[in-house]
Amino acid sequence: MKKEIKHIGVMGAGLVGALLSIYLRKRGYKVSLYEKRDDMRKSSSDSGRSINLALSKRGIKALEDIGVIEEVKKIMLPMEGRMMHSKDGELTFQPYGKEGQFINSVSRGNLNKILLEKAEASGVEIKFEHTCKSVDLEGTSVTFKTPETEKTMQFDLLFGSDGAYSQMRQAMLKTDRFNYEQYYIPHGYKELSIPPTEDGDFAIAPNALHIWPRGQYMLIALPNLDKSFTCTLFFPFEGQPSFESLQTPQQVLQFFKNTFPDSLPHLKNIQDEYFQNPTSSLVTVKCEPWVKNNCVLIGDAAHAIVPFYGQGMNAGFEDCYELNLLLDKHSDDWENTLAEYQEVRKKDGDAIADLALHNFVEMRDLVADDKFLVQKKIEAKLHEKFPDKWIPLYSMVTFSDLRYSEAFEIGKKQQVIMDEVMQKPDILENWENIDLEKIVDKL
Amino acid sequence: MKKEIKHIGVMGAGLVGALLSIYLRKRGYKVSLYEKRDDMRKSSSDSGRSINLALSKRGIKALEDIGVIEEVKKIMLPMEGRMMHSKDGELTFQPYGKEGQFINSVSRGNLNKILLEKAEASGVEIKFEHTCKSVDLEGTSVTFKTPETEKTMQFDLLFGSDGAYSQMRQAMLKTDRFNYEQYYIPHGYKELSIPPTEDGDFAIAPNALHIWPRGQYMLIALPNLDKSFTCTLFFPFEGQPSFESLQTPQQVLQFFKNTFPDSLPHLKNIQDEYFQNPTSSLVTVKCEPWVKNNCVLIGDAAHAIVPFYGQGMNAGFEDCYELNLLLDKHSDDWENTLAEYQEVRKKDGDAIADLALHNFVEMRDLVADDKFLVQKKIEAKLHEKFPDKWIPLYSMVTFSDLRYSEAFEIGKKQQVIMDEVMQKPDILENWENIDLEKIVDKL
Repeated sequence: MKKEIKHIGVMGAGLVGALLSIYLRKRGYKVSLYEKRDDMRKSSSDSGRSINLALSKRGIKALEDIGVIEEVKKIMLPMEGRMMHSKDGELTFQPYGKEGQFINSVSRGNLNKILLEKAEASGVEIKFEHTCKSVDLEGTSVTFKTPETEKTMQFDLLFGSDGAYSQMRQAMLKTDRFNYEQYYIPHGYKELSIPPTEDGDFAIAPNALHIWPRGQYMLIALPNLDKSFTCTLFFPFEGQPSFESLQTPQQVLQFFKNTFPDSLPHLKNIQDEYFQNPTSSLVTVKCEPWVKNNCVLIGDAAHAIVPFYGQGMNAGFEDCYELNLLLDKHSDDWENTLAEYQEVRKKDGDAIADLALHNFVEMRDLVADDKFLVQKKIEAKLHEKFPDKWIPLYSMVTFSDLRYSEAFEIGKKQQVIMDEVMQKPDILENWENIDLEKIVDKL
Repeated sequence: MKKEIKHIGVMGAGLVGALLSIYLRKRGYKVSLYEKRDDMRKSSSDSGRSINLALSKRGIKALEDIGVIEEVKKIMLPMEGRMMHSKDGELTFQPYGKEGQFINSVSRGNLNKILLEKAEASGVEIKFEHTCKSVDLEGTSVTFKTPETEKTMQFDLLFGSDGAYSQMRQAMLKTDRFNYEQYYIPHGYKELSIPPTEDGDFAIAPNALHIWPRGQYMLIALPNLDKSFTCTLFFPFEGQPSFESLQTPQQVLQFFKNTFPDSLPHLKNIQDEYFQNPTSSLVTVKCEPWVKNNCVLIGDAAHAIVPFYGQGMNAGFEDCYELNLLLDKHSDDWENTLAEYQEVRKKDGDAIADLALHNFVEMRDLVADDKFLVQKKIEAKLHEKFPDKWIPLYSMVTFSDLRYSEAFEIGKKQQVIMDEVMQKPDILENWENIDLEKIVDKL
C-alpha cells in the first residue's frame, strides 16, 4: 500500500461512485470520477419513468451526511407497507413498520443527477464517455477508451464502484487466491408500466409497494413522481409458466387475465412492453478480498445482490458512510482504514446478499399466507410492547442501522422462537391473547 | 445444438483431454486435440521426478476400457494405506481398505505420455504449441496462437478439457446466467523430494502414502518409480507458522527439525528446494451449466477440486467413461447425451469437491487422533462382517464406482451413526466388543 494518497480515481459514476466521490472530496482529496455513459443530466431520456429504488434508513443517513437530503426529499415517494393483490382482486395491507415508518420510492436517474450535481459542485472532476478497457492492479492505473482516443490514467488509490459486472473485479478475478461466487436465480425480470389515469392521478394507491404474490413468481409496482407506476414481473426463465412459455400476445394477455386480473386494466401498454422490454437476469456476487494493492471494490462491484430487500443502493451508500467513519477513526491512514473496511463490510455484504435471496420467497409466496401475516402481526405487537428488545428483522434491516450481519443473526433466533409460537394449533384464532412477555424472554 | 457431429475439437492434451480423445476417436469421430505446451514425449524434462497422482478404481476402469491398463500397470506403485509419522517419529499404519485393496502412485507425466501415444495410434490429430487466445461459444471455434501464426479453427463440437484455469470456462463466465464459484483454501503447497538411499533403495516404506499430520498443516510423501519420493508440504500462506513466517534457510531447517524430525535426514535438498520451488495455491471450482451451445466442459475445467481425496484425475476419467456410456445409451444423439451428462456429472462433481475439502481436515488432523483411528477400525470390521451393507466412505469413493453423490449421502448417514457409537465412554477400550449388527441396522 502506497502511503501518501493525494489523487483518487473512482470508476463508475452511478449512485455509489458519485456519493463516494463527494465523501472523498470533502476530506480534501483530488478526486476523478469516470463514467462510460454520457452525462445523464444532458441526455434526453425520460428520467421520470426510469427504474425506481427503495430508499431507507441506511441510504438516507448517508445522504444527510453529505448534505443533499433536502434535494432528495423532493423526489421521494413514501411507501408505508405492502399492498397485496390476491387472484380475485382482494387487497391486504401490511405495514412495513410502526406508524410513521416507511420506505421511499425514488427514481434512480433523478437521484443520480442530484449526486452528480453535488459532486461537481464539491470539486470532483467528472469524465463521461470513458469506457474502461483494462485495470492494472499493480500500477493503480486504468486504460480508458473515449470517443476521441485511448489513454491510461494513474492514481494513488483507485475505487471500483462500477457495478455488478465490475471491470476492476474482473481484473481481480484473474489474480491468484481471489475467492469469487456469482449465482443467478432461475428467475428473470421484465419491466412494465401503469400510466396515470385519464384524470392525471395514480391508478392504484400511491403510498404502498404493490405485490401480486403468486407462489413461484410475482408482479410488483412502485410509484413514480409523474403518478405512473413501474411494474416488475419476476418470473422463471424456463418451465410452466415462464418467460419461455409465453410466446404470443394472446398468451401474455390470457396469462395476466388469469393471474393478475386486477392489474390488467391499468397495464395500458402491456402487449408492446412485454415484447419490447428486455428480460434481465438477477445475480448475487460475493468475493474476497475487496482490496488488492491500492485498488478497492465498493457497492455492487463488491457485493451485487438481488433486489428483493430493497437494500442494494442502501448497502452501497452504507459502504461509503462506514468508509468515511473509518477514515475519521484512523486519521486517513488508508492501510488501516481499508483493512477494517473489508473486515467489517464483507460480513455485512454477505449477510444482506443472503437476506435478499430469502426475501424473494417471502414476497412472492409467504405474504399470501394467513399464518405468515399473523406472525408479522404478533411481531409488530412484540415490537410495540418491547420496542428495544424485539425489533422485527425487516425493521432491523430497513429502519435501523444495526449491522446487516447482526440483524441476520438476531433474525434467525427470532425465527426459531416464532416457529415454535406458530405451531400452537389455535394460533390463527387466538394470536391476540398470547403472552408476549414469554416470547420476548426467549430471545 | 447442431445435429450432425463429425469433427470434434478437444482443448488441452492433459490426462482428461487425451483420454477423451481416444474415446471419441474409437466411436468414429474425427478428433483434433490441441495443447499449448510442446510434446512432452520429445522434451527432455526428467519425467520420473514429476508430480505423482493417486490412481484408483474409477480411473483404472476407464484405462481398462480404452485398453491401456497393461502399459499403465508398469508405472503403478501400490500404496496400501496411510503411514502416519508422529512428532517423535512413531509410525502408525492405517490400511485404506480390505486386504488386497490399494491406491496407486503414478507419475502424471508418464501416464500422460501413454495416453498421448494411444491417442495418436488411434488416429487422433494432436497439435502442440497451440495456445488458446479466445473461444467463440456461438461459432464453436477457437483462435490459437502457434509459434508461427494465429489461426481460428471451427468444429462441430468442442470440449474444454483445459484444466482448473480453463479458457473455455472463462468464455462461459462472460455469458449471462452462468453460475460460478472459485474458492481458495487458506493453504498453499510446495513440493520437496526424498531421493533414493545411497544403496539405491527407497528411503522410507514404499507401499504407503506417508503423512506427517500436524493439525493445521501436514507433509505427505508418495513413492516414485525411481525409488525417490515426492513430498508435498500443505501449509498456511499466512499466520504462525506459515510460508510467510518461514523466511530464512535457518528458520526452515529449525521448523522441520521441530515438526517433522524423522523426515529431515531424508530431505537431502530441502534448503534449495524450499526456496527454489514455487508455493502454489489450491482452488475448488464449481460452475453450471457445463454445456453452452456446442461447447462442453469436462474434468478440472468443469470441477477443479483440492487434491486431498486423490480423486481429481479419477473424477475426470470417470467423466469420460460416463460420457461414453451415455453416447451408447443415446446412440450418439449428442443433445440428449450432453443433457444427461451435465445432469449426472454436475452432482457428482460437486460431491467430490466437498469430500476433497473435508478430507484435508481428516488427513492433516484426524488421522493423528486415537478416537478417529478406532472409528476407522470399527468401520473396517463392519465392512468385513457386512461387506455389502457397510462400506466405509473412503472405500465407496476409492474402491467402488458408486456415484460420488450417493457415496457422499451414505457417508453422512454413517457419520451420524458413528458419532453416536463413539460417544460411549469406554469405546476406546472396548471397541472390539461392540454389537456390530446393531450399528449396521441403523443405516
